[in-house]
Amino acid sequence: MAVNAPSKRTTVRRGTNRAAYSDDAVTAVLEAGLIAHVGVTTEDGPLVLPMAYGIQEGHIFIHGAVANALLRAGRALDVCVTVTIVDGLVIARTPFHNSMNYRSVVIRGTATAVDNPSEKAAALQVINDQAAAIWDTARAPSDMDFTKTLVLSVPLTEASAKVRGGDPIDEEDDLGGPHWAGVVPLISRWGEPHAAADLRGNPTAPQAVLDLAGSNAHPISSTMKP
Amino acid sequence: MAVNAPSKRTTVRRGTNRAAYSDDAVTAVLEAGLIAHVGVTTEDGPLVLPMAYGIQEGHIFIHGAVANALLRAGRALDVCVTVTIVDGLVIARTPFHNSMNYRSVVIRGTATAVDNPSEKAAALQVINDQAAAIWDTARAPSDMDFTKTLVLSVPLTEASAKVRGGDPIDEEDDLGGPHWAGVVPLISRWGEPHAAADLRGNPTAPQAVLDLAGSNAHPISSTMKP
Repeated sequence: MAVNAPSKRTTVRRGTNRAAYSDDAVTAVLEAGLIAHVGVTTEDGPLVLPMAYGIQEGHIFIHGAVANALLRAGRALDVCVTVTIVDGLVIARTPFHNSMNYRSVVIRGTATAVDNPSEKAAALQVINDQAAAIWDTARAPSDMDFTKTLVLSVPLTEASAKVRGGDPIDEEDDLGGPHWAGVVPLISRWGEPHAAADLRGNPTAPQAVLDLAGSNAHPISSTMKP
Repeated sequence: MAVNAPSKRTTVRRGTNRAAYSDDAVTAVLEAGLIAHVGVTTEDGPLVLPMAYGIQEGHIFIHGAVANALLRAGRALDVCVTVTIVDGLVIARTPFHNSMNYRSVVIRGTATAVDNPSEKAAALQVINDQAAAIWDTARAPSDMDFTKTLVLSVPLTEASAKVRGGDPIDEEDDLGGPHWAGVVPLISRWGEPHAAADLRGNPTAPQAVLDLAGSNAHPISSTMKP
């Protein structure tokens, strides 16, 4: 199912050579990210807040204590959800061609609350499991936990990905000059898990947590190689 | 000069124990970040785009090819500029207390174009030098470079920082349970610089670029220890 077609408002206007609208490109970036920056329009102007997210079946789910504030603030719940991963610093011969290598997705749409209990549980699980599958090994949530939590869903129907990889692109005239140019990669890795100070007894960390140590926090999928 | 006082619209409403309004807290986060997520209100709804930024003397400067689009889109240029650094995954006994350790700043205000030539040059330098001082060792910009580039300035007068560090905070009832809890740190480091494929001759990388290798891309300042 091609859930994702570029609309007028998600058509990338700058750097169109870096734009990608395929479901695969959007999904690959969203799977590799950790937080979303969610924008709403409030009576006090635009507001952008970082939130945890997860994706499933053509939707992005967002969640946080701030979800309530967003719901209050933006009655129509028209949102923009942007996920960005920085992959490196691109150093050109001249500062005006300096750039960053990055992967990003911009989603525009209407956020609705996920009320159906089983859908809400599934959405919360994908949000919690975005970095590692930690939902199933934790204490199961209570009814109260569910009641206190608000989850918003935004369809991925209006989404575009933008990816920059590789070398700087300099002016032809600068190529023979004396200035260095290249890329400094940025690599984000999970460190060794450390137990909470209030841990009692000797429970071991779940395998999914142990497996994080040393791994790339923003893996580049094979479909996403620049 | 206390440039930064919380206004009604930048007062943190959730997790107020994590809020900080001091100039030092805001500055420490902004100095450690790499990109900003800039939100504007367009006739098609909210729009959030990632942009490079720099700070100087109570202002944040933002820049990118998208700056022009933002100017067109938001006539009043009311913006929200949010910078977030993720420091770790916080794993609680129950998923509802899972969290992330992070540092973030939310700035709301009116963006104006920086037109004065010397101010524009200074602003572009701080943007370019945000990760490493690479402006002075590059080919000097031409008049055309300056003309093509738009820089926006937003005062830091309405800014708030929010920082979460340390262990998960679980329910008392869960502390004796069998579930592990702790933190997995996320560490972003610069890798080894590699030269562009089209590099001619044998220019060496600037010292500021060589110095990046292996360093923390989001250093925690001494004033910012959780």
